[in-house]
Amino acid sequence: MDWLLFLVFLGACLGAGMTGALFQPGDWYRALNKPSWTPPDWVFPVTWFVLYGCMAAAGARAAVMPDSQYAMAFWALQIALNGLWTPVFFGLKKIRLGFAVIMALCLAVFGAMIALWQVDWIAGLLFAPYLLWVTIAACLNAAVWRLNPQVARSA
Amino acid sequence: MDWLLFLVFLGACLGAGMTGALFQPGDWYRALNKPSWTPPDWVFPVTWFVLYGCMAAAGARAAVMPDSQYAMAFWALQIALNGLWTPVFFGLKKIRLGFAVIMALCLAVFGAMIALWQVDWIAGLLFAPYLLWVTIAACLNAAVWRLNPQVARSA
Repeated sequence: MDWLLFLVFLGACLGAGMTGALFQPGDWYRALNKPSWTPPDWVFPVTWFVLYGCMAAAGARAAVMPDSQYAMAFWALQIALNGLWTPVFFGLKKIRLGFAVIMALCLAVFGAMIALWQVDWIAGLLFAPYLLWVTIAACLNAAVWRLNPQVARSA
Repeated sequence: MDWLLFLVFLGACLGAGMTGALFQPGDWYRALNKPSWTPPDWVFPVTWFVLYGCMAAAGARAAVMPDSQYAMAFWALQIALNGLWTPVFFGLKKIRLGFAVIMALCLAVFGAMIALWQVDWIAGLLFAPYLLWVTIAACLNAAVWRLNPQVARSA
């Protein structure tokens, strides 16, 4: 793997991930009703740390393959949407718009995984835990919406 | 040009650009001291509309070229940083951190332009107005910092 290429893709992940460091779950999130299966707060940064490594590796592997144009376009799409959810949910406290963003992110990650798989199956496989995690996050966002209808309506 | 590919890159631009629609310059920004050459508010969305078209076209042109791995990696890096500035500056009202983000964005856009140019000079040229605009935006951010030292320190 071209490590300089890996580092540029990792930089993109860290750019998106900075929103997670800047827009923290505060009193507002703690006060919300959450489903029993909600992961504790510390799980999120740890998971993202691992996922960002996988995503950057997938990008660097696929980028050097022929016919990787759709894999690269979807990689860019998913990272743009990845950085959008946290400011919408924790920054603006918009639960419903957050759900729309994370559904779009799920689709983009799914599209990226398919496109990556077609040029390099290992790159595609590296996106599988990411797709699983954003699906769990989408379910959590949906559950928070359902359990806090009045908070969701007010934003 | 492959128009479906163009649309995926444009989707990434719109994902990043949504932060501009969601985190608007409000009373806080209006009350700041700004340099005499500050563009009026309406110039920003109009400019970004044009730039996003250019950026998506550059991505779609370069993605199908051989050896475009660095162009694609930097394209992803710049779009991740592009969506970060608005939540930091208008959302968190962090003028100094905003300047750090926009300087990183300038470097990423410069790197992308060089890498794009090497695989397709038209793609590189399509990034030139973008580099010019983020440089102006970085100067504006720096001027706002200089003219509002106490506001900058407080965030």
